[in-house]
Amino acid sequence: MSRNWIVSTALPVHYQVRMVDGLLDPDNRALLEAGATRRSDTIRRLIVIDAAVDRLYGVQLRHYLQHHGVKYQILALPISETLKTMDAVFTVVEAINAFGLSRRHEPIIAIGGGVLMDIVGLAASLYRRSTPYVRVPTTLIGLVDAGVGAKTGVNHAAHKNRLGTYFPAKDTLLDRGFLRTLDTRHLVNGLAEILKIALIKDRTLFELLERHGTTLIDERLQGTTPESDEAATQVIERAITGMIEELEFNLWEHKLERVVDYGHTFSPTVEMLALPELLHGEAVNIDMALTTLLSVQRGLISVEERDRIFALMRKLELPVYHRLCEPAVLEEALADTVRHRDGLQRLPLAMGIGSACFVNDVQPSELRAALATLKEMDGGSESLREAAHA
Amino acid sequence: MSRNWIVSTALPVHYQVRMVDGLLDPDNRALLEAGATRRSDTIRRLIVIDAAVDRLYGVQLRHYLQHHGVKYQILALPISETLKTMDAVFTVVEAINAFGLSRRHEPIIAIGGGVLMDIVGLAASLYRRSTPYVRVPTTLIGLVDAGVGAKTGVNHAAHKNRLGTYFPAKDTLLDRGFLRTLDTRHLVNGLAEILKIALIKDRTLFELLERHGTTLIDERLQGTTPESDEAATQVIERAITGMIEELEFNLWEHKLERVVDYGHTFSPTVEMLALPELLHGEAVNIDMALTTLLSVQRGLISVEERDRIFALMRKLELPVYHRLCEPAVLEEALADTVRHRDGLQRLPLAMGIGSACFVNDVQPSELRAALATLKEMDGGSESLREAAHA
Repeated sequence: MSRNWIVSTALPVHYQVRMVDGLLDPDNRALLEAGATRRSDTIRRLIVIDAAVDRLYGVQLRHYLQHHGVKYQILALPISETLKTMDAVFTVVEAINAFGLSRRHEPIIAIGGGVLMDIVGLAASLYRRSTPYVRVPTTLIGLVDAGVGAKTGVNHAAHKNRLGTYFPAKDTLLDRGFLRTLDTRHLVNGLAEILKIALIKDRTLFELLERHGTTLIDERLQGTTPESDEAATQVIERAITGMIEELEFNLWEHKLERVVDYGHTFSPTVEMLALPELLHGEAVNIDMALTTLLSVQRGLISVEERDRIFALMRKLELPVYHRLCEPAVLEEALADTVRHRDGLQRLPLAMGIGSACFVNDVQPSELRAALATLKEMDGGSESLREAAHA
Repeated sequence: MSRNWIVSTALPVHYQVRMVDGLLDPDNRALLEAGATRRSDTIRRLIVIDAAVDRLYGVQLRHYLQHHGVKYQILALPISETLKTMDAVFTVVEAINAFGLSRRHEPIIAIGGGVLMDIVGLAASLYRRSTPYVRVPTTLIGLVDAGVGAKTGVNHAAHKNRLGTYFPAKDTLLDRGFLRTLDTRHLVNGLAEILKIALIKDRTLFELLERHGTTLIDERLQGTTPESDEAATQVIERAITGMIEELEFNLWEHKLERVVDYGHTFSPTVEMLALPELLHGEAVNIDMALTTLLSVQRGLISVEERDRIFALMRKLELPVYHRLCEPAVLEEALADTVRHRDGLQRLPLAMGIGSACFVNDVQPSELRAALATLKEMDGGSESLREAAHA
């Protein structure tokens, strides 16, 4: 007796990401209607919100919901990278059970940064094997990165995002108005992921950041003049468009050569080792600074381009070095990444400004040389910073 | 500013289910090669096994692995419906971390019943957002039901399978030789799911069970004569073929009318209330007995067909009633199922023997009438059983 059955099918996935102004304005129905599959007289919503966002926007949010007669429950979660665990997922699951959610018609709404969206996304993914949710990112990194893709996840046993799923929100609403209350460091954290897209595939975006970077930071991308408004719009839209172009054909990451992994080769190890000292985008930028120098050594980036890149990183107030970046740490980080990438480095390197290639043969000696240059350049920038503050 | 991005893609899913004889025979390379994407000189495998299966087959399994020079780690998990929790998933995750699994080339192997496969499947699904695994069911219900589909899951906060994913094993190896050591009750537990397929879509399978049911149980489907071997083969193959036909076009259960939900309308509530008294298949059979009577009341099944169905249930030693089946419990169970099925009953009912339809309008009065008849018929069968044992 020998019989085989082959099951062949496909899961269609469609989701929407859209820019919306004035999301909590009572006249705006976007939040009310997002992710809902049918109209109903009684709208019920479970909303999971970052506790910090609750302090800043909780009154306005409740006013919005009450204005529309929504029967709601708000769960405010304390959020940090160290609280990004399955326990937080269980807290969301308990809230879903207690709310008595109607799974197909009452999408869970997640309002907060990347960590909050990752936690709620995983809870939604697991609850009855999938429950629709809506994302409302409130940070820049959430707007251009975590809120755009399909990944959910939590840290587990000291490993970053060790447990998770691919489960995009049905609908993601991007309102850059939330950036108004973001501190500079968290704003800049998001600019690092925008710079990544610029370096690997969008020279125009790089030039926009060069021209308007300081204004974008000062104005928190709110665009107080027609020119800076246009710049903020362009920067956000180009970053998201670039990200989605790379994600759409490889949403489950079956292809391991991913240009959007640029800046994510050495940084996961450095970020987790330095916790809670470095933000994600800061660790990513240090990785990009280091790999820029690898590119220079291989003749993929000229010295002039290198200087432009480092000048922009400084303009954006992004760190290019951390004292944990020692040869042994970087080599171990590369080895760990090789394990993640199925035995090959598949290391994206910038080629000039605005395109990238992959290499598999970076040697420890190259790493050490790049690191030595990086320390020098960072020393230089520190002198510059000191001079500026003198 | 208003910009929309629509992401449209699809996740292709392909998996294999196959019958294999003598899986732990050192000459059989199927277990060695299952789910592996490339040949390698050193084969490493993490194997998660039901502790009970370890006692029965642990020596043979280790001998098999050593014979082939496999570097292995075996995790033996104590398994029961009450231990089917996220804690068990974390135990598997710790074993994966400790083993240092190469995610794409060293599939996790799960050997055990449905509960073990559901736990390992969920761990594999979550680990780095998906890690391939292989299933080797050792129970009849595992062979024809849990091992064939895509669902993973654990119970949470007293709710059955509240957390889970759709994540089929790359490869499922079915060796009915494992049934040799299965006790009668667990064997019959699997026959209930086979009877389900027979009732809703396969009259020939029903007739095979009528003709060979007693022999199949006595011989544990091992086929000691050419005739009983052919019968066991036919019964298993028809049950799996029927199941896969229903799953393949609806693997993620987007369509809520599922004939394979037959017997699963009232049983989830009864099974969880009665824990650990009723096995899954026993609860399913009680549900099927009750809904058979609903069909009779609606003229969908004749009295002669009803008597054939109940006679077969008795021949297969399956319970048709449990004292928890009171009108209030059944009505609450139906209400809970309606919540699961998006506001409609979508109740599959057998039409004659071998086909089914869906109804949305079952009334409490119908339920009470069917229940009264069920109690009578169960009383009758108890008198019969007592007579047989007198």
